[in-house]
Amino acid sequence: MQTLNVELGERSYPILIGSGLLGDAGAYGELAENRQVLIVTNTTIAPLYLSTVEQALSATKLRSLALADGESHKTLHTAAEIFDALMADSFARDCVIVALGGGVIGDMAGFAAAAYQRGVDFIQIPTTLLAQVDSSVGGKTAVNHPRGKNMIGAFHQPRRVLIDTDVLATLPDRELSAGLAEVIKYGLIRDLPFLAWLEDNLERLLQRDRDALTHAIAESCRNKAEVVAADERESGQRALLNLGHTFGHAIEAGLGYGEWLHGEAVAAGMCVAARMSQALGLVSQADVQRVERLFAAAGLPIHPPVGLGPDRALELMGHDKKVLGGRIRLVLLRQVGEAFVTGDYDSAVLERILADNFSLQA
Amino acid sequence: MQTLNVELGERSYPILIGSGLLGDAGAYGELAENRQVLIVTNTTIAPLYLSTVEQALSATKLRSLALADGESHKTLHTAAEIFDALMADSFARDCVIVALGGGVIGDMAGFAAAAYQRGVDFIQIPTTLLAQVDSSVGGKTAVNHPRGKNMIGAFHQPRRVLIDTDVLATLPDRELSAGLAEVIKYGLIRDLPFLAWLEDNLERLLQRDRDALTHAIAESCRNKAEVVAADERESGQRALLNLGHTFGHAIEAGLGYGEWLHGEAVAAGMCVAARMSQALGLVSQADVQRVERLFAAAGLPIHPPVGLGPDRALELMGHDKKVLGGRIRLVLLRQVGEAFVTGDYDSAVLERILADNFSLQA
Repeated sequence: MQTLNVELGERSYPILIGSGLLGDAGAYGELAENRQVLIVTNTTIAPLYLSTVEQALSATKLRSLALADGESHKTLHTAAEIFDALMADSFARDCVIVALGGGVIGDMAGFAAAAYQRGVDFIQIPTTLLAQVDSSVGGKTAVNHPRGKNMIGAFHQPRRVLIDTDVLATLPDRELSAGLAEVIKYGLIRDLPFLAWLEDNLERLLQRDRDALTHAIAESCRNKAEVVAADERESGQRALLNLGHTFGHAIEAGLGYGEWLHGEAVAAGMCVAARMSQALGLVSQADVQRVERLFAAAGLPIHPPVGLGPDRALELMGHDKKVLGGRIRLVLLRQVGEAFVTGDYDSAVLERILADNFSLQA
Repeated sequence: MQTLNVELGERSYPILIGSGLLGDAGAYGELAENRQVLIVTNTTIAPLYLSTVEQALSATKLRSLALADGESHKTLHTAAEIFDALMADSFARDCVIVALGGGVIGDMAGFAAAAYQRGVDFIQIPTTLLAQVDSSVGGKTAVNHPRGKNMIGAFHQPRRVLIDTDVLATLPDRELSAGLAEVIKYGLIRDLPFLAWLEDNLERLLQRDRDALTHAIAESCRNKAEVVAADERESGQRALLNLGHTFGHAIEAGLGYGEWLHGEAVAAGMCVAARMSQALGLVSQADVQRVERLFAAAGLPIHPPVGLGPDRALELMGHDKKVLGGRIRLVLLRQVGEAFVTGDYDSAVLERILADNFSLQA
């Protein structure tokens, strides 16, 4: 088992990475002992792992809530089901919420934990690669608004993140690839050696080699933890983690949440960001091809879907949280392995990139 | 104009108290200049003061939303209307929400500000005495759950509080009295000289003497600011501000929110707390009578309504946030002018107090 720490003063917490953690009572520490515990999961994960987690906990009151699966359910309305469950069983302010699932469950249960009685403890147990390497770490919680992704939320750090690598065995291939999109992101924005390692080891990752996956998860979490520790509330460098996300959110919102997986939309979005970086003279054509090659090898789309069109894409990007002072701020590549945030670019270049990448017709 | 400061490091903010602040562009500082501003108000306040506030602001985009008036509308559902308004007009993360109204509007707009894009700036402009002396200061925001008051919320400090004493001219008598309940509370929990001043000046306050009201507001805000600065997230002494609130919340929830005003329920709740303090041998019968006399003189109820009954009251108290480790924590009086929090009391005494105070029949 490996342990990383997210250093945030009194809000610091450990990330435990290893095999068999779900059923290991010790992995939960004192957090779930003699406490009221609500496990929030979904109907896909519940039959696979819920009983294992339940048996590892020694709670004074243990309830579970299996929500409908999928991004389309990540709404204020579904979060209200969590509040209802907590209230129906008189959960007190010293209760613990356990988020057992992918990013949707983690974001939504985390938001419920942030808001219930103005904040209760929660534990993240991410069950997708994407949630393990990204959304479970760093305290961003949210639900979607019909007009925009993650628009209603809170910064609320978990007390602990348990990453059980065994759960990846049941993950569909498509979800594994989607998780790799965020893994590759860390290499692109700030860790060139890791990017090179990924290029060399992508086959092992796709074959679910446990050592390779554990290394990729640990390196991703280390990168994420460093960024979050330096900028918890995204006033600066944390925004780099959004590489590809502004374009990606437009794809997700334009298609309807859940049509493409988040990782798929972000992969295509990172390719668009790379092309925009090239158009601005920052990176070379060879760099863009290197980026595209890696995403393609990971089984990910490197182009936005046909049909959205540049105007709709721009409109949807305008709903993204990365808008400040009326200007869409973009994360771009200064070079492969180094991203930066800017609102200072030629709008005509953005328009051309959108026209080239978001076709209305095939 | 008086200015107090709530000292919370980088989250510090000023409370401005004076006449004519609503229409004074300078009172808003730079906060509402060249920003997107959404004014959240209600249908009672909008015709009285909305245009004054709108004219004082020099926003790049100015929208207003008038919600239905009353505690029964302080729900997640109504908060969603605020999110809808923000999203419909593409409000960005650097927007400002102005809460123009009483405690319901302040709590709800504040919660929306806390959650929209994970936190945007907001300004409190309280238009009831209760909101001016209590809910607008300190960053507690929330909406109610059908099973409990303020159960869904956030700690999110305003950037500024504007208390315009002129608005009290249009406040109904009943609301003035309700506000005095929280004013008196500060005297009871930590400020005996202020309590004596209130006893001497209650008539002036009821006659809306401007100097007396300004003094009462300033002293209340000073007390609140000191408590909040020492304990922002209510891990300790901030809980003293809940004197009477656990009993009061049971009254509000039992009757249905809005039947009694919050201040009325809390006044009766403080009298119950005083009686419980007497039953535990902490204060004298004369002390209890002194407390009752002051609330009665302020036009406030000193007994819970008939009909709720002790069992229902206890059940509703169990839903209150002041439950820790399965035990209802109560704020009691060690003496008049000094409150304390305890979960260490004889349950039989609580049961007797509930039986005596929450009658099923007249």
